[in-house]
Amino acid sequence: MVAVLRRGTTLAQRENLIHWFEDMGLKVHVSEGDYQCILGLIGDTSKVDIDLLEGLSIIESVKRITEPFKNANRQFHGEDSVLDISGRKIGGGHFLMIAGPCSVESEEQIICVANRVKAAGADLLRGGAFKPRTSPYDFQGLHGDGLRLLSLAKKATGLPIVTEIMNINDLPLFEDVDVIQVGARNMQNFDLLRELGRTDKVILVKRGLANTLKELLMSVEYVMSGGNERVILCERGIRTFETYTRNTLDLSAVPMLHELTHLPVIVDPSHATGKARLVEPMALAAAAAGADGLMIEVHNDPPHALCDGAQSLTPDQYDVLAGKVRKVREALQ
Amino acid sequence: MVAVLRRGTTLAQRENLIHWFEDMGLKVHVSEGDYQCILGLIGDTSKVDIDLLEGLSIIESVKRITEPFKNANRQFHGEDSVLDISGRKIGGGHFLMIAGPCSVESEEQIICVANRVKAAGADLLRGGAFKPRTSPYDFQGLHGDGLRLLSLAKKATGLPIVTEIMNINDLPLFEDVDVIQVGARNMQNFDLLRELGRTDKVILVKRGLANTLKELLMSVEYVMSGGNERVILCERGIRTFETYTRNTLDLSAVPMLHELTHLPVIVDPSHATGKARLVEPMALAAAAAGADGLMIEVHNDPPHALCDGAQSLTPDQYDVLAGKVRKVREALQ
Amino acid sequence: MVAVLRRGTTLAQRENLIHWFEDMGLKVHVSEGDYQCILGLIGDTSKVDIDLLEGLSIIESVKRITEPFKNANRQFHGEDSVLDISGRKIGGGHFLMIAGPCSVESEEQIICVANRVKAAGADLLRGGAFKPRTSPYDFQGLHGDGLRLLSLAKKATGLPIVTEIMNINDLPLFEDVDVIQVGARNMQNFDLLRELGRTDKVILVKRGLANTLKELLMSVEYVMSGGNERVILCERGIRTFETYTRNTLDLSAVPMLHELTHLPVIVDPSHATGKARLVEPMALAAAAAGADGLMIEVHNDPPHALCDGAQSLTPDQYDVLAGKVRKVREALQ
Amino acid sequence: MVAVLRRGTTLAQRENLIHWFEDMGLKVHVSEGDYQCILGLIGDTSKVDIDLLEGLSIIESVKRITEPFKNANRQFHGEDSVLDISGRKIGGGHFLMIAGPCSVESEEQIICVANRVKAAGADLLRGGAFKPRTSPYDFQGLHGDGLRLLSLAKKATGLPIVTEIMNINDLPLFEDVDVIQVGARNMQNFDLLRELGRTDKVILVKRGLANTLKELLMSVEYVMSGGNERVILCERGIRTFETYTRNTLDLSAVPMLHELTHLPVIVDPSHATGKARLVEPMALAAAAAGADGLMIEVHNDPPHALCDGAQSLTPDQYDVLAGKVRKVREALQ
Repeated sequence: MVAVLRRGTTLAQRENLIHWFEDMGLKVHVSEGDYQCILGLIGDTSKVDIDLLEGLSIIESVKRITEPFKNANRQFHGEDSVLDISGRKIGGGHFLMIAGPCSVESEEQIICVANRVKAAGADLLRGGAFKPRTSPYDFQGLHGDGLRLLSLAKKATGLPIVTEIMNINDLPLFEDVDVIQVGARNMQNFDLLRELGRTDKVILVKRGLANTLKELLMSVEYVMSGGNERVILCERGIRTFETYTRNTLDLSAVPMLHELTHLPVIVDPSHATGKARLVEPMALAAAAAGADGLMIEVHNDPPHALCDGAQSLTPDQYDVLAGKVRKVREALQ
Repeated sequence: MVAVLRRGTTLAQRENLIHWFEDMGLKVHVSEGDYQCILGLIGDTSKVDIDLLEGLSIIESVKRITEPFKNANRQFHGEDSVLDISGRKIGGGHFLMIAGPCSVESEEQIICVANRVKAAGADLLRGGAFKPRTSPYDFQGLHGDGLRLLSLAKKATGLPIVTEIMNINDLPLFEDVDVIQVGARNMQNFDLLRELGRTDKVILVKRGLANTLKELLMSVEYVMSGGNERVILCERGIRTFETYTRNTLDLSAVPMLHELTHLPVIVDPSHATGKARLVEPMALAAAAAGADGLMIEVHNDPPHALCDGAQSLTPDQYDVLAGKVRKVREALQ
Repeated sequence: MVAVLRRGTTLAQRENLIHWFEDMGLKVHVSEGDYQCILGLIGDTSKVDIDLLEGLSIIESVKRITEPFKNANRQFHGEDSVLDISGRKIGGGHFLMIAGPCSVESEEQIICVANRVKAAGADLLRGGAFKPRTSPYDFQGLHGDGLRLLSLAKKATGLPIVTEIMNINDLPLFEDVDVIQVGARNMQNFDLLRELGRTDKVILVKRGLANTLKELLMSVEYVMSGGNERVILCERGIRTFETYTRNTLDLSAVPMLHELTHLPVIVDPSHATGKARLVEPMALAAAAAGADGLMIEVHNDPPHALCDGAQSLTPDQYDVLAGKVRKVREALQ
Repeated sequence: MVAVLRRGTTLAQRENLIHWFEDMGLKVHVSEGDYQCILGLIGDTSKVDIDLLEGLSIIESVKRITEPFKNANRQFHGEDSVLDISGRKIGGGHFLMIAGPCSVESEEQIICVANRVKAAGADLLRGGAFKPRTSPYDFQGLHGDGLRLLSLAKKATGLPIVTEIMNINDLPLFEDVDVIQVGARNMQNFDLLRELGRTDKVILVKRGLANTLKELLMSVEYVMSGGNERVILCERGIRTFETYTRNTLDLSAVPMLHELTHLPVIVDPSHATGKARLVEPMALAAAAAGADGLMIEVHNDPPHALCDGAQSLTPDQYDVLAGKVRKVREALQ
């Protein structure tokens, strides 16, 4: 960690600060320039509160050198983590296709989609039972009934299931769930993350709309510091000024996260773009960029035959996409 | 609501869509152009799921005309809402000063700050007991003990108290709290908002770092649709590319929100800027822009005498700020 | 175009406005709702000044239905444009590899890199002679000498050349240049664009750091409305809050632009990421997303043997990348 | 300047790098941690090319300590710069009101507005003759004729004039102009800035839509390093995800710039918000935040009596605003 002192800091103030650092077990190197003085802090700085430090009147700026996340850090765990999800593997070269509808709507629907995506080679079934919606007047999911229907689909197809949790009090309902998803809006719901760190489920953490990769890794740290090291990261688009797409899919996050962490990284092109016709090119791009998996919305019966489903693909479109993803991955092996 | 059809939509598809809208009780006006066809939807469109609609293959784009929020909407409630908080008023010309430390640290600290800010004319005392922190290794607050110390400070000074809730399971601990704050990171924790809509507390909702004003108002709708109409909005900075300040304080949100809603709007310049020396100018600017109140971090004993406290003011600095805010408000009356 | 009137607009004001539109040759459809009135404008609305309209006190909001760009619009030109650049083709399935150093530094350097990238299959040579630099104290390029060295490299290798123009007064120096590049910072230098529309060069327009795709297409319209229809678009990253990468490469721009325009779209992963080790994965992702070409920084002699060059690849790294790009493209044919 | 070396950097590489810095006349302090090594560079680092450095494979990250701008830097020029514009002063407590129409339209219009804003106490007259427009089909200004009309208005009222330049070739037309404005889209048109640094005009540089304060100061450095030290900075809104306002006015830029530079800072609330009804609250906020002046759009004859003019105020509205601004400034003296 490097702290730059403001001009005009007195020697007494500087000594005071250095003693404070030393009391925390850090060694301090002083580099004095013509205009400013720089302190290099050596040791375990992960517990130094950077917000507090930046607020000190004598501090110009502070910069971490060692990243503040530990469990997820590639520096301390050079090998890719490979996770086993009821027999399916992800990470370290293992690629996972997750597919299914945005919301679980009925037994018929979820069984139908599950069979179709299984036939097209999907590894896991996704489906929302608890839906975070901007408006209280929009459909919020089938809740417990939705989870029950997912279990039926799991039994029928053998596909492990992924679904989102919004409230830690609902955890008992998730017993049969293989991967618990933390949605973008809850990426910094720290109490939820901490509790999930005490479970033995695989946790899928989606990047928040305005969260940096560092914040994503710190949120993962909440889960991992609780003892649960089976975490998957998911890039699903960030908020920018562009309006043609719902969000801006940040695919450079994939190789960047691979450099920073040993955990698997997947991409959700459906939510990122919000347009079905952009899902295939972005899925292929994600595979080419080195993602460890994809999460794709698939719907069997576009509502009222009006649509091919907003951001959802039909099962036929998913078949085509899955075939092309395989080709891209083979080409790069 | 206006829906623009994509080029190439067949007449049959269009009729199909129109019938679907009509089944929802809407009237549909068709405007046909050379290249595209526009449907104007008349009636209660607040329950139309805009995400679903945008996903239809025959839809080019959709635009709401009437805002989707109702309870908070100025259109249906022309007068400013005036809230009474244990005898202090906010809204409709009533201005509220909220001051106190970022975190409650000890009885001595919170009583001392409470006395100082009361003497400088503060109306409410703030202090964090549950602290959302990016890192699991940073100080997370005193929790129940913090709330107990806030109660002591309330008893000692008579100042009503404001503090943040992170988990609905902690609600029983908030009995003596006058204003419950929902932090920026929980602005879209919809379960939490919904539960707070069933309490009789004043709810202070902070804008999320990457949330639009419309999303803020939709989150407020979660609280209000539960029956609790006593809500205060708080602008506290949004995330942009600029790095000199922690966030970018969006002061145009103040007059813009006053146009959109009848609820009071306050500003938190401390968290927005992250620099103590920017708090005063931004507080004055907020008052000049018409804010109904301010929330200012004040700390009695800058840690270890090293600092005048990151983004916190000393009580003396707060005195000066409060005096200037009064002058600006008087000048504009 | 759809204009929504504000509540409280009088009938007389509305009639006034309708007449104004009709005087511009537009037909107006009125849809009256319970709360607001919507005007649908039919006809050639590309000359309606949307800024002026949005400023009218009786207007709530305005929305274009037909895009305001014409020459670049896919709606009026369904087939992909295929451009011929001194025998190399781009667009409509033709893919172009552009490679070379950020700056032209010396005859030895540019000839060396040109030979190396030609051997690896590059179609065009890039190299900067006029360099836009944030600081006036940074190296600004060799200017006329740089262009002369590029010509030598062109003669030596037969590769057509691409280089950036910053000032229209320098145009006479660009006679031997095959593709003139307009950099991100000049994307809205409208005088420059207009003048380039009068040349017979291929113009490569890079997206500005904070510019929407619509603005990019409007800038292209400045070139095309002058008569020069040979334009290539380039996505090179936009500015967001993320700091690990220099900019955020918006790859969804590739399929989105292909939907909006018939012009070829290329990607520059070197400037977008600012990190050499992210260039390959992002280049592969761009190819998978359907880009019509790539622009890659390659440097022969990393300065002072200290580096493998910031965002530049070595010729060997470029060889590997080019091979993989070919494989991805073959896999998707 | 601080450079952090990547893990795995060899001693030889490090020595190599240190010698390179020393050859540039810098002293190097080495701080070695458990995981990484930090180099502190002491001396004149303003000429170190940070982009080049960041690209080196052995560099993890680089951070400037001393800001790279010199002429504008408050560190080397502690006193506020006070500029004299044909007898009107700005900076160091002197406040300047600039008002006038967005575009010069006719002699009658500009004379009328000039008289009205002069009567309301304006110090300078603004009016656009060269208009940068996103679309080539929108009105681009009266060019030379517009400048001639501005001169007439100057003669008639005695008000000095401010107007925008887009192309350095037009400079001869600006002889009678007192303040030459560089618009947001040209903030990084470095050739234009450099040429303006050779004139004796006051230069008003507007912040670009996606430019940081540091970049704004570096652009000013282009002007000042040419010898022209009479520069005014202007905050006019940045691009964010919020859509209710055209841009997001970043008022914290005012005190932040005052800390970084000695130059005067003004605010343009008209372009920032794009809504006439937000101009007054944002103008008052800017004054309260310590701005050295305001630039306000005023139009005498809202077009076709349809409007009170998009983002323009009527002269009557400007009167009211100017009066309130004076009150806020008096309250804070």
